[in-house]
This record gives sequence, C-alpha cells and structure tokens, in this order.
Amino acid sequence: MNVSFFQELLNGVAERGRHLLDRSLGGVDPTRELTELSRALLSGRGEASGVALAQEILAQYGVLAAEAQRDFFRFLADELSPNEAMLREAAEGYLVSPNAVSLNALARAVEAPRAEFFRRLNLAPGATAKLVAMRARLLICMESEPNLKPVDDDLMLLFQSWFNRGFLLLRRIDWTTPASILDKIIAYEAVHEIQGWDDLRRRLDPSDRRCFAFFHPSLVDDPLIFVEVALTGELPGSIQSLLTEERKVEDGEAAPTTAVFYSISNCQEGLRGISFGNFLIKQVVEDLARELPSLKSFVTLSPVPRFRSWLATIKDTVDNTLLSEADREVLQLLHDPGWILEQERQQVLKNVLLPLAAHYFMAAKRADSLPIDPVARFHLGNGARLERLNWLGDVSEKGLGEAYGLMVNYLYDPREIERNHEGFANHGTVATARPIRSLLKPASRALVSAGLVEGASAQEAEPEVEPIADTDGIESTNDLVEAQD
Amino acid sequence: MNVSFFQELLNGVAERGRHLLDRSLGGVDPTRELTELSRALLSGRGEASGVALAQEILAQYGVLAAEAQRDFFRFLADELSPNEAMLREAAEGYLVSPNAVSLNALARAVEAPRAEFFRRLNLAPGATAKLVAMRARLLICMESEPNLKPVDDDLMLLFQSWFNRGFLLLRRIDWTTPASILDKIIAYEAVHEIQGWDDLRRRLDPSDRRCFAFFHPSLVDDPLIFVEVALTGELPGSIQSLLTEERKVEDGEAAPTTAVFYSISNCQEGLRGISFGNFLIKQVVEDLARELPSLKSFVTLSPVPRFRSWLATIKDTVDNTLLSEADREVLQLLHDPGWILEQERQQVLKNVLLPLAAHYFMAAKRADSLPIDPVARFHLGNGARLERLNWLGDVSEKGLGEAYGLMVNYLYDPREIERNHEGFANHGTVATARPIRSLLKPASRALVSAGLVEGASAQEAEPEVEPIADTDGIESTNDLVEAQD
Amino acid sequence: MNVSFFQELLNGVAERGRHLLDRSLGGVDPTRELTELSRALLSGRGEASGVALAQEILAQYGVLAAEAQRDFFRFLADELSPNEAMLREAAEGYLVSPNAVSLNALARAVEAPRAEFFRRLNLAPGATAKLVAMRARLLICMESEPNLKPVDDDLMLLFQSWFNRGFLLLRRIDWTTPASILDKIIAYEAVHEIQGWDDLRRRLDPSDRRCFAFFHPSLVDDPLIFVEVALTGELPGSIQSLLTEERKVEDGEAAPTTAVFYSISNCQEGLRGISFGNFLIKQVVEDLARELPSLKSFVTLSPVPRFRSWLATIKDTVDNTLLSEADREVLQLLHDPGWILEQERQQVLKNVLLPLAAHYFMAAKRADSLPIDPVARFHLGNGARLERLNWLGDVSEKGLGEAYGLMVNYLYDPREIERNHEGFANHGTVATARPIRSLLKPASRALVSAGLVEGASAQEAEPEVEPIADTDGIESTNDLVEAQD
Amino acid sequence: MNVSFFQELLNGVAERGRHLLDRSLGGVDPTRELTELSRALLSGRGEASGVALAQEILAQYGVLAAEAQRDFFRFLADELSPNEAMLREAAEGYLVSPNAVSLNALARAVEAPRAEFFRRLNLAPGATAKLVAMRARLLICMESEPNLKPVDDDLMLLFQSWFNRGFLLLRRIDWTTPASILDKIIAYEAVHEIQGWDDLRRRLDPSDRRCFAFFHPSLVDDPLIFVEVALTGELPGSIQSLLTEERKVEDGEAAPTTAVFYSISNCQEGLRGISFGNFLIKQVVEDLARELPSLKSFVTLSPVPRFRSWLATIKDTVDNTLLSEADREVLQLLHDPGWILEQERQQVLKNVLLPLAAHYFMAAKRADSLPIDPVARFHLGNGARLERLNWLGDVSEKGLGEAYGLMVNYLYDPREIERNHEGFANHGTVATARPIRSLLKPASRALVSAGLVEGASAQEAEPEVEPIADTDGIESTNDLVEAQD
Repeated sequence: MNVSFFQELLNGVAERGRHLLDRSLGGVDPTRELTELSRALLSGRGEASGVALAQEILAQYGVLAAEAQRDFFRFLADELSPNEAMLREAAEGYLVSPNAVSLNALARAVEAPRAEFFRRLNLAPGATAKLVAMRARLLICMESEPNLKPVDDDLMLLFQSWFNRGFLLLRRIDWTTPASILDKIIAYEAVHEIQGWDDLRRRLDPSDRRCFAFFHPSLVDDPLIFVEVALTGELPGSIQSLLTEERKVEDGEAAPTTAVFYSISNCQEGLRGISFGNFLIKQVVEDLARELPSLKSFVTLSPVPRFRSWLATIKDTVDNTLLSEADREVLQLLHDPGWILEQERQQVLKNVLLPLAAHYFMAAKRADSLPIDPVARFHLGNGARLERLNWLGDVSEKGLGEAYGLMVNYLYDPREIERNHEGFANHGTVATARPIRSLLKPASRALVSAGLVEGASAQEAEPEVEPIADTDGIESTNDLVEAQD
Repeated sequence: MNVSFFQELLNGVAERGRHLLDRSLGGVDPTRELTELSRALLSGRGEASGVALAQEILAQYGVLAAEAQRDFFRFLADELSPNEAMLREAAEGYLVSPNAVSLNALARAVEAPRAEFFRRLNLAPGATAKLVAMRARLLICMESEPNLKPVDDDLMLLFQSWFNRGFLLLRRIDWTTPASILDKIIAYEAVHEIQGWDDLRRRLDPSDRRCFAFFHPSLVDDPLIFVEVALTGELPGSIQSLLTEERKVEDGEAAPTTAVFYSISNCQEGLRGISFGNFLIKQVVEDLARELPSLKSFVTLSPVPRFRSWLATIKDTVDNTLLSEADREVLQLLHDPGWILEQERQQVLKNVLLPLAAHYFMAAKRADSLPIDPVARFHLGNGARLERLNWLGDVSEKGLGEAYGLMVNYLYDPREIERNHEGFANHGTVATARPIRSLLKPASRALVSAGLVEGASAQEAEPEVEPIADTDGIESTNDLVEAQD
Repeated sequence: MNVSFFQELLNGVAERGRHLLDRSLGGVDPTRELTELSRALLSGRGEASGVALAQEILAQYGVLAAEAQRDFFRFLADELSPNEAMLREAAEGYLVSPNAVSLNALARAVEAPRAEFFRRLNLAPGATAKLVAMRARLLICMESEPNLKPVDDDLMLLFQSWFNRGFLLLRRIDWTTPASILDKIIAYEAVHEIQGWDDLRRRLDPSDRRCFAFFHPSLVDDPLIFVEVALTGELPGSIQSLLTEERKVEDGEAAPTTAVFYSISNCQEGLRGISFGNFLIKQVVEDLARELPSLKSFVTLSPVPRFRSWLATIKDTVDNTLLSEADREVLQLLHDPGWILEQERQQVLKNVLLPLAAHYFMAAKRADSLPIDPVARFHLGNGARLERLNWLGDVSEKGLGEAYGLMVNYLYDPREIERNHEGFANHGTVATARPIRSLLKPASRALVSAGLVEGASAQEAEPEVEPIADTDGIESTNDLVEAQD
Repeated sequence: MNVSFFQELLNGVAERGRHLLDRSLGGVDPTRELTELSRALLSGRGEASGVALAQEILAQYGVLAAEAQRDFFRFLADELSPNEAMLREAAEGYLVSPNAVSLNALARAVEAPRAEFFRRLNLAPGATAKLVAMRARLLICMESEPNLKPVDDDLMLLFQSWFNRGFLLLRRIDWTTPASILDKIIAYEAVHEIQGWDDLRRRLDPSDRRCFAFFHPSLVDDPLIFVEVALTGELPGSIQSLLTEERKVEDGEAAPTTAVFYSISNCQEGLRGISFGNFLIKQVVEDLARELPSLKSFVTLSPVPRFRSWLATIKDTVDNTLLSEADREVLQLLHDPGWILEQERQQVLKNVLLPLAAHYFMAAKRADSLPIDPVARFHLGNGARLERLNWLGDVSEKGLGEAYGLMVNYLYDPREIERNHEGFANHGTVATARPIRSLLKPASRALVSAGLVEGASAQEAEPEVEPIADTDGIESTNDLVEAQD
C-alpha cells in the first residue's frame, strides 16, 4: 500500500486486461489503448475504479499527438453515440403509449453514452480544466469535421450545467492578486491589449479603477471572464482619456457618479458559447452600487466592430434613400487617412457618418433581424440601451480600422432592462436614446418605426445626456465583448 | 441606484406585471403568484432579470406552508413537463429520418422545461442549498403522491451533474474545525450516535483518530458525507473497544497498521440516491496511505442491520437443510435476553448463529439476487471483501436488536477491488474470506457454489486474519452506511 | 544533511562540550546541564547556533520537575544578574561626567544578562508561548521566594514590549470559530461560568450577542483576553435577564441602542499585570459603533466583589454618621438568607444598602485613596463613569455572597473618558451619575465633595437614565474584570 | 457615536486643550502642536485615550515637512531624555546601597521617557511600519546631526525587541505571491538587479529556483529581507550561468545536490543594524534540507566588493613580499579593459590576482583585525567557510569594477559553523578551504599562521571541491549581503 491505492487499483485493472495497458509492446496504438480504457470507464469497472481509470485516460489523452486526439474524438462521435435500435424502440414505445414510464425510457435512450463518459472522467482530480481544454481542441477539429458536433453538444450541455452561474465566484482582481492570475489577465485581455505589467498596474491599482472576474471552484487560478471598470464623474467619450499613462488620480476627488465598463474578455476558449458576460456585468453593477452609493449610472464604452465593413457594402448599392450622391462624395475623403488630422474634413465626415451609424445600429439587420454589430447584439440582448455615439472615440489603428474611430456607450438602467430585453428579443427593437434616433433620415426612420413605438417611452422624454460626444484630439483603442458572430 | 440593482430590476418586472406581485391584495394566492414568477423565469424575462427573479422565487417558496409547497410541486409536475405534441413530432421525425439533426431535436423535446427552470433558479446566491432542501421536501410529498416522481427525476439528474465527485472537496474534520460544522457532525452521525461534545472530541482529537468529509463549494459549511476512522494495530473485533471513554492514547505507540472505517454517515436528505460513499472511502484510503506508510490494511467495522429480522423469517420455514431441529431449539434461548450475560449460553448460540450468518451474507438473496443486508450490498458493490464475523461485536441495545450483537469487517484491498466488484455486479458473487465460507453448511455451500468459483481465488489460499473474532465482555454499538433498501 | 541542519548544528555544539550534553551518564544533574546550555546561549556560541540552542534549552526546561525549575529560576536570579562591579563603575562614570556616552554605558550595565538570555530563547519556534508559561510558573515560585522578583521584572519588561497593543489582533469569536479556541473560552471564562457548549452557543451565536478576543501572532490559537457583549434596547439591570436560557432572539427586532459588556476574562496567567482590558473595551466600542450605527451607549454590567466584606468591617465601627442605630438593626435582617424571598424585607434592606453602596464607591477608599472595589478601580481608571446601581442584579450564590445581589453599570462615554480618567488618577474623583450621588448621606457627601466639583459637570444636569434599577424576581450571576487586588 | 469612538475621544482631548489642536489659527506651529500631543501621550491622558492620541500624532508627523521632522527629532532628543537629577540620585542611591530595590530604581531612571513614548505610539493601528519609516528618516538626519543618536539608540533597542527572530515568519515567494509583494522584491533586490517582471519570473517560477523572505506580522505586505536560491548539481562558478535567460529547466532532471544562495537583500532601511540574514540563511537551509533530502551542500555565490579598491591601495606600497616587481608589471595590464577579451592576458593576470585574493581574505585586516571585505565579514561571522575563488565569476560592469570579475563561494557546514564562528569572533581566524590557503605566498602565510592552526582541521584533509573555478566566457553580475561598512 506504500505507493498509492489508486495506482494499485489501476494495476488491478491492468492485470485483468493485460493487452490494454501493455505499453511495452512496440505495436501498440495509443488511441486504441485509450479507447479500451474509455470503454472500461463506462463499464462496471468504472464503478469500481473510476477515479483511477479517469486519471489514466486523461493522462494518456494529454500526451496524444494532434491527429491522435482527432481520432479519439471520432471514437467518441461514432462509438459513444445513442444506440439507434434502443432509441427507435423507446421512441416507438412512447408514441404508442405516452406516459411517465415511456417518457423516462425515451429520455435515457436519447442520452449518448459519452455524456456519462464525460461525467466519469470528471472523477479525477483536476479533470474539469482538462475537459475544458479538450473542448477547445475539439472546436478546432470541428471546423474541418462538422460531424464531430454531437460530441460538442454533449460537452456543451455538461458545461452549461457545471458552469451554472450559481457556482461562479466573483472576485476582485487588484494589485494584491497573485501574479500567476495577473499573468492570465494580461494574456486574456482581448479588447484593449495590456502592454505589460506597468499598464496592468495602471488598470488595477488606482482607487478609481476596478477589475472583477468570475472563477469556478474547479479552475482555481484561471478566470473565466473579467471586466475592467473605470469610475468617473461623467459619461466618457473616448478610450484614450481612460487609459492614458499621464492620468492622475487624486484621492480627495469627488465621489464617482459613473461606472464605465470599458473591456470584457472571455478567457476560456473551451467554454465558448457559454455566456457569463450578462451575469458578470449585472453582478458587478449590484456590488459596485452597494459599495459606492454615489454611483448613478452604469455604462459601457464599446467599440463598433462591423461599422466600416458594413459601410463598404452599402456604398456599392444604389439605394439613394440611405446614401445621397453628396454623401458618397464625402465618403471619398476616407480614402486619405489624413482626414483624421484635419479639423475641417473631420467635421464634414462626421455629419455624414453619424446618421449612417444611427442607421447601422437601428435599421440595418441581419437575416435573423438582429443588428449586424455583435457588441450591440450582446448589450441590447442584456437589456441595455444604446446611449451615445462617440465621434473619434477610438483613434487607434484598430479603432479607425473597424469603425473610423467611432465608439458608443450602452447604458444599463435597471428600470428598463427587462422591457428593453423583451423588445429586442421579441421584435428586434433597439432601445436607443432619443438624440440618436433623431439622427435617422426619414427613410431609416420608417424602417425602424415598429420598434420605435416601444422604444420611445415616457422615461426618455428628457434625454439625460448629450447624445453625441465630440472628441477633438487624437486618441486610442476600445472595447469588445463576448460577442461572436 | 442606492438600494440594489437587482431589487430595481425586479421592480421593473413587477411594474410590467402588476397583478403578479401585488401582495397587498387580500385575495392573492401565494402559490399562484409563485407560479407566475416561475413562468416569468422561464420566459425571456428570465434572461434579462434571472438572478433577481430566482431570488424572489426562492424567497417566496421559503415561506410557503407545507400544503402550498405541495401545490407548487404539482405545478412543476403538470405544467413544466415536456410538451407532448412537440415530443411526439420529434419522435416521429427521428423514426422517419434518424440523423444528428433529428436526434438533437428529440433530445431537446424530451427535456422537461422544469430542468431549465431549476438551472435558472440556481442563478440566485445560495440557491443550491435551497434546491437540495426543496428536494428533501419533495421526497416526503412523493411518498403519498408518486406522480411527482418526474419532478424528482429532473432534480436528481441535475444534482448528479452538480455534485459530480470532481467538484467535491475532501476536508479533514478535527478539533480546529469551526464549531458550526462540528455541530452538524454531531447531528448527522447516523451509525454510532455522538453523545455531545466530549464524545465528539474523543473521536476527532486523539492522534489515532481521523474524520474526513466531502464538501461542495456551494454548500460551504455543510458536509455531504463523512467517515470516522480509527488507526489501530489490528483488525478490531468490537465497536466498544474503539469508542470506550477510558481509552488511552500514547503518543509513542507503535505506528498503526490498520485503518478502520467504523462509521459513514450521509448528511443531506435532499441528496438521497446520489452516492458519495464509494468515492469517500477510496479517497480517504488513498490519502491515509500516503500520509502513513505504516498502514497495511483498510477495513470497516460494520453492523449487520437485517440479520435478526431475516432470522425471524426463516425460523418459520420448514427447510431443515438450513435449520435443524436442534438449531431451532438453541435459538429459543434468544427469547431470554439474559443469554448475553452467561458464557455457556453464548457459546451454544454462537455455534448455531455464525453458520447462519455465513448463509445470510453469501446465500440469502433478494429477488434481484443481491444480498439482503444493505451494508453488505454497499461495501461488496464497492469491491470490498467480507473479511471476518465478529461475535458480540456490538452488544448495545441497537446491536443486539439488529443482529444479536454481530458485527463484520469488510476489507478494501486494491488488488481485488475491481474483480470483486465485477463478480458481485455481474453474478452476485460475494467475495468472502475462506474461513467464513468454511462455516457454510453443505446445503448453503451448494447454493453459492457458482459464485465461489470466482471468489476462491489464489490470493486467498492463506487466510491472513483470524476470520472470526470472539468478544467476551459486554460492549457496544455499530456502523451503518449510506445503504438504503 | 538528511536529519536537520539545526540538529547537526547542535551536535557540533555538543562535540565541543561533550560533558554538557552527555545525558547517558547516570549522574548528570539536569539543572546543571541546562545552566551550561544557558551560558552557551549567552556566549558567542549563541550567535552561531542560537536557534538550535534555544530549542534545546526550552525542551530540557519543559521536562524538568517542579523543584528543578525552581533551581533554574535561582540560577537566573543569581548568576544572570547585572555585574555589580561594572555597574558600579558605570554609575560612577556617569556621576563624574554625565553625557550621552556615559549614559549609554550605564544603560547597558544596568540591564541584566538574563534579558538578553530571554530574547535569545525567543529565537526558537514556539518559544513565546513557552516563555509565557515559564513566567506563570515563576509567579508561583515567587510567592514563597520573593527574591526571584528581579527575574520576573525582566520578563515583565520584555512582555510589555512584545505584547504591545500594536501587535494584538482583535478577532470576533463566534460559532464559526475553531472548537479548539472555543474550548479555551469555556475554560478561561472567569466571571459568569460557561456551563458547557450549549451555554457557550447561547452567548456567541444569537444575532444580538458578540464576543471579541485579542490574539497575539505568536500565540496563534490562544486568546489573551476576551469580552462578552450583549446588544440590547436598554440599560440592563440584572445578569439573569441577559443569560437566561429561555431568551428569544427575534430577527426583526428593533435595532439595538446599547452594547453591554457583561464579562471580561484574562486568559494567560503568565501575562498577569500586563493590561489589555482597557484597549479591548475601547477597540470593541470603536468597532461596534462603526458596524451598528444604532448603538448609542456602551456600558458594563459589573459585579461589586468587595461590598459585603467592606460592610462587615464597618458594621463593627461606631461611626454613626455612616450607619445609624436603625440602619444597624435593619442590617440584622441579612443574617437570615430568607430576606431575598420576601418583598417587604427586601425593600427595607434596599433603603439602607443603596446609600451605603453609594458611600462604598464614592467615599470609602484604600490607603492609596483609590476605591476599595477592584472592578471600580479598573473601569474608573479607564475613564468610565459609575452610572447605575442595580438592586438584586445578581441573586446567584456568588452575587449574594459578594454583594447581597448588587450589580452596577459603568458607562463609557467618549466625551468624558479623558476627564474622568484624569480626575480619578490625579484626585481619586469617582465620576458618578447624579442620582447615585444624591443617595449619599450628608456625612458621606462631605467626604467626597472635593471630587464632586469635578464630577458635577454640565453634561450631567439631566440624568439620562433611571439611576437605580429594581429587579423583583430571583435571578443570577455576574461580571468581573481583569482587576486583581 | 456615529463617527468613531476614537474620534470623539480625541475631540474630548481637544476640548480640554483647545489651543493644542486649533489648526484653524493661522499662526500655529505644526511641530509645536505635535510636541504638545506627544507630551499628552506620555501623561495620564495617554492612558485614557492612547490609541486616539497615537493615531493623531502619527498622522500629523506624516505630513510634516522634512525640516519640521528634524525639529521633532530634536524635541525627542532634548526633552524626552532621562531626567538628569533623578538619574543622578538613583545612581548615588545604588552606589550607597546596591540591592534589588536601588537597582530597579536605577534601571527606571536610566530609561529615557521617549522609550515609553515610542511604545505608546505603537498603540495605533499600522504604527509599527510608520515607526520603521520614522527611523529611516532619523538615520538621514543623524548624518549631519550626530547628537540625535540617543533617539536612535532607543528606537533600535525597541526594534530589537519587536523584530526578535521568534516573531518573524518565513514565507516562500513564488509566482502565486501577490503582485504587491513581488513589486517590492523587484525594488529591494540590491545585489543582482531584477530587470522587470520577466526576469523576476525566471528567478521565482522554475522548479529549481526558490526565494524566501522574512515577514513581520505588523508589516503585512512588506518583506524584511529575502534570499534567492538556485538548486544545482554542482558548486556554481559564475553568476551568469545561474541567471542567463537561455537557461532551460528540465523537469525530469537529476535531484539537486547543492543549494546556492546567490543574493540576499535587506528591505527596510529603518531596520538597519538589526541582523536578519544569519537567521534567514540558517532557517532556509533547515527547511530546504527537510524538503529536498538530496541536497548535500549549502553555499553562497558571493561578490568581493572591496578587492579592487584594496588592490589600488597596496599597489602604491613598496612591500615587495606581497607584490613583486613582476607582479606590478602584470597588473599594468588591467589598465586596458581589453584584457578580459584575451585568453592570454587573462591567464597571466589570474596567476597574479588569485594569490593576492587569498591574501585579501585571509591576511589583510582592518584596524579591528577583521577582514576588509564586508561580505566576508558577514558569512565568516555566521560560521561559514571560504570555499572557493571563482575567476571571472562576474564579468558584468559591476563585477569587473568591484573585483576584476572575482566571485567566491562560502560554505555553510553545520558541523563546523560554531567552531568557525568562534575562531573568527575570538581570534579573527578565517576558515578557508586548504587549496585557497595553498595560494598564499610565504609572507602572507606567516601573517595568518595563528589563525591557520585553528582552521586546518582534520576534516579538511581531503579538499572536497576543486578550489578555484575557471570561467572562460563572458558572463555577468553578483551578490551582496546585508553587510555595510
């Protein structure tokens, strides 16, 4: 008993299936060995020696070459699928006699054995992180091999259950956080790249900055998602004003009134499609509001990642209701990157681009009648309102490349969130501050009129903020969210 | 924003469904209000304001009277079931064309909406503990209302996923553990009742005692299951020798060779049917073996809860192969409780009872051909071996009442566990030390011969321990496990 | 290097002083060995192998018999004293030429080598606790051997530095505190004995109860002093009303206005004479006031431990200004313990005893012109005010035995604390609520008049509380503080 | 009571001494106010409201300008000194009648009131760190104002008691350490500068690197001293081989046999003169030896900071026994920095410089007959042995500038430590490996012969390591210790 109970237990397994584990044989196919162990885990053996088997399987999977991993996924897709004959029988049984018993039988038959396989793999210490990594790899394989999708469906279902918001822990990230976690914050930041430890410190340490992350108890040192927040005295119009190195924090400053979410980054590729951002934002709002009663508004400062590419597509159409000839001419100015350096050209472009932006958000829709902009879909889907367009909000290369420098603010107002969400989910209505709506040309206006009925609520009668911010100087960067197209 | 973002969010919900939440109206039916909120949680509203709604639902459920809770369960059973029409369509679709798409559609249709409902309830802080408590209540209601079972099936499925062994934390319980947890250890101990804090201390504090529990990250201060262990120099024959107050621990004593698991208790009624004991025992064996290399055997000291009642049933049969006339006469001695006080009567009874006990474990089976004894089913199912019968191992009122004082040891030997488990699971073979088998009468022997082929392995050629322990004095109590009939 | 660097280091010491450590020799005198090691610790060897030597010395001291410990203390007193010749020279040097250099030389010469010895002992892990225990033992030896006092003086000086309030940690004690610490709370409670774990729980767990302790980083699990607090809606008049088992806590109750310190207990005999109580009370007041803004007064409920014995002494005097003949007659009633059961006798006694109590607190003084009552000296010295006399505040055997049931409240009012303290420290003035002063007979009044000038401040013009509480029922127990006569 | 008990308490102080705290008066002298508060802290007021007063004093001190701080130190030096008259009386009293009482009186009179003042300052939360910072400032002032030294003497005495090794916590510093602490490691590293976070990570994260620091419970996030360790398979000859970026760590490598302490840095200027390094090294050796039984030797890789400057002084002497004419000629080569690039010149220089280095360590002494080299004094004083000279061990600018690239190893061998320490402390004997001794020229040899008797012990008969390491390549940097001249 001196080595390890689990090791001995596994040796017991090995003795009984000598061929399985005999790695000294030259001709052993590692995937084949792995599939044998996987079958054992699903059998009665798994009940007796589950932890040991699961450890062994994960260890062996961990050293497989990429192609062998793909083979292993094929095994999961092909062999650990629901048994068709049994499922057919269960389906027929239910159709003949639909009751609790036949329903239960059907539910069992429809679940693929690999679901139980994954649950048993998770018996091993540290398995959860390895399964998340396994799915990240699977997603890559799926790109060229879409029939692996049922495997992904089962992992996804499991992860949705395991990573239920009730199990997530919100932790503040600051300068007393272990360096091993901060390392990951630097690596995972996907919106406004962190330029090393000094930049990181500027985002975490000042008294008017916050960062929060969700963690899962089984992924101890690895955040799932994090958000960076600036506490300010007003709605911010540009990212550079937030991130500039020269910024001074004065301790005695007035209490902040506005919390600005300027960057949200998902961290785990293997959890793609499992949404944490909505919960994270609302929980952080809840906690900040309690900590700092002076806070009155909770907004984002967000990028507009599809604006430029959308503009490229419509410039070629002949629809003059959206783009007059004069407009088209003005847009020619954009061909010379120097426009950004000259006040006059800026102004001319602004007059044309902002109404187009209003259209882009409110009227331009995808086939599923949702907005083209992924960031907009995320925040509007959460119940936020499009609050302000920020001209030259991000004049970094990225910001100009994506949206000619445009940024926007979304506002999270608890009294409106549900109404906004439902309008958006049911009718595609984009909740928008009145001054943005007033930018729409008549033709656009007609397009969105259905939605506007809902949107133009009494509460908005008086716009509380200046809807369009103007930034004169040359500034930088911007925010993306957990939105994927 | 001064109160709470979630509260305001909920107020937003309330405004839009004034009738739902208007509790000032005299005639409001609390269950009806709860069901309205529950529907809202499943609708798009749940996406926007899930955490707030879930909190409110759990709060309202928490103050319901027992009967109203039952009404709520009926609502879950009736209304949040799979939609029959859609399910029928999906089943037919699959039968016509069984492919990944139709399979996926069927899998979705077969899941009851209440599964998603429970997952969304878990958005609220502290929800997991409340859902576990909800199931405990549901189990009571189900006793008289079996058609609530589908609700339980869905909760059970969820809990199996959430309480996956990979998420459990093993923690040692000792005298530095918070009193709030120790309190629960006292309350939950189901095998050998803990007689207050002094008794507890005797079981936790001495250097030759251990206690370990599984915890779940979401049930912070509440153990799921715990096991009490004594470290000894030999296989213990009676519970009283372990638990006596007068016991002295000498620090300089010889290193222990044997870890005795003398009590395992499940703590959460709401997790009934989810098995932790198997994992707990094996993990504790693994950890103890690492910590204390001197440990060579890992055994239980276990009660025999059905022995006396089984004996009562067979006494009335006329099967003389099991019970001779002489035997029947001897058993009459048991009518006088004084037998326990007299050496001679003890000896006579022992000669008759031990062979019967061997039969009870090895040959007497339920309809499903598993042993009658629930503790035996648990340990044998885990792959342990029945190692020794302990005559007068527990002479407490409970021990005499259940089994005329009989206790047994089960041995966990890693080299045998899988073989034992498979023999038991596939053929009902009871792995038994040879000396116990040799107690069997010829007729019993014939009954178990099939199993014995498997059981009589080479390793057992030399019995390593004296198979039957004899205890002269009057001693006490014993161990039950997470076994339910 | 496999064993231990320190062990090898010590072996190095041993080799060079073989006779020191050769314990195999039958005739070795353990104290002599210890003194040799002690000399080594003070020599250059101590610089090279201090940690190892200190460990060894403490280990050897730990197993000494009581008498040998006493011998060791004598060694410290005799041999590790200041060198008289050098000290004399330094004193003369200073007198001849008093400057920084000669002052420094004198300061060095006056410090006993044992001060450095104790500091070096503290190099060993866990030494601080052992030194505290050593002083506890020394205090016992000193009772019969007062010339050990210089040893105690040096330890005391060291402890005053080490246990400086700045190093103490205030921790809340509640039901989540480790049982090993709670154990000690039960053992150390010196005022109102804790009757086991259920009683302890009643004092820690309810939402209107608090307990706080000071800990020192080097005595991890061992509190130095703790205070028990009840949060109430009014000034409490009796201890039983606070501690009764039947008490119900209602969560929705009105916010508390009064924090009552009803028990303070010192825990470490070895730290006797080092005062923590003053700091503890004020820190707890600070913290509670921050946590619970509804709290308006901070009072004690305190015993009167010398009242009865003082009364016995004055009954024999012939001073009729304090005790009239009629009074003396009434006091005869106290000979029959049944007075407590009868309303009428109670009333008669109360009329005589309360004015005497006022005198006892305000006018009866020790030779050093401080009050006779040790609890009074403690709280008044801290700057508190004597606020109310509680007739029948503690009718337990202890309460009746000490003070015929009398208890009192002291009030900590931050605006008065310094003035009260200075009046008390400089003039012996007892800060007293006006209604208690008005109980004084004219003769007593004359005695305290000097003090009253200070005490009768403007703020007291309107007594805020009813100064004398009357309790009808039979109740129990009471509070003592870290006051020793 | 809503603000703070301590604040109100302080207001009470303020009311009674209105002039003290009236900061609204234009003409208030901040130092005068501070001195008034300081007197109050030492008076009876300090007993009543010590924590509040101490907080206030530290807050006010914290905002003083540099010159006002100096004034404050003068106040401490002048006014809070021992009372000369009382001290004179006590000294006379002792001389007349030297007994326990007069000794005690003398001891009290000789302690300056500022000692008690500092102890009372430490009542305030966070005071310890502020006092340490205060001393750092005082040390600067003392440079130009030596009569502040008595203030420093008292602080030093207090710190020696407070920062007793028994109160220090050894903590490992690694990549999971909070960034706020790592920040300080980067800032405090005094020997081989850390070039940012990547360099830091290379020193902390690899499995063959360790870093340990001492912390004090009252300076939570601020290390006192730390040591960096490399685990290797052999005695390292150059710092660059340890710190090079290209280094690869292989997990499966052979177990390390040697722990190399290559950098020790003190962190707190305010604790200058309080020695932690000796304890740190020995504790780390103890802990590493326990963790890694494969470790057999514990050595340093150390710089030789005075070698070059010493050489400069002797070159000008005419003592031909140490430096022959030929040697002098060779040393001319050093004027051309290019010598380092050419094998031949290196070799010629090596032949001359190494014997000089042997002389430098073993024979060249300061007036107090201790070695010139501060690092040598530190390690030899701890009982280490000079083990090897490393030619071109540090070819960085610093290494060449200090010692023409020379580095050395000191060996900590537990069996020798005490003997080495005593030889060094009592006779100035430098424990040296035989091969280094054999480099000495006859004249040097004569000089050190006294010491060599002691040093040439039996154990060294067989040199275990090659005494002189030769490094061919160009490498970098090196280690200094808590040695100040």
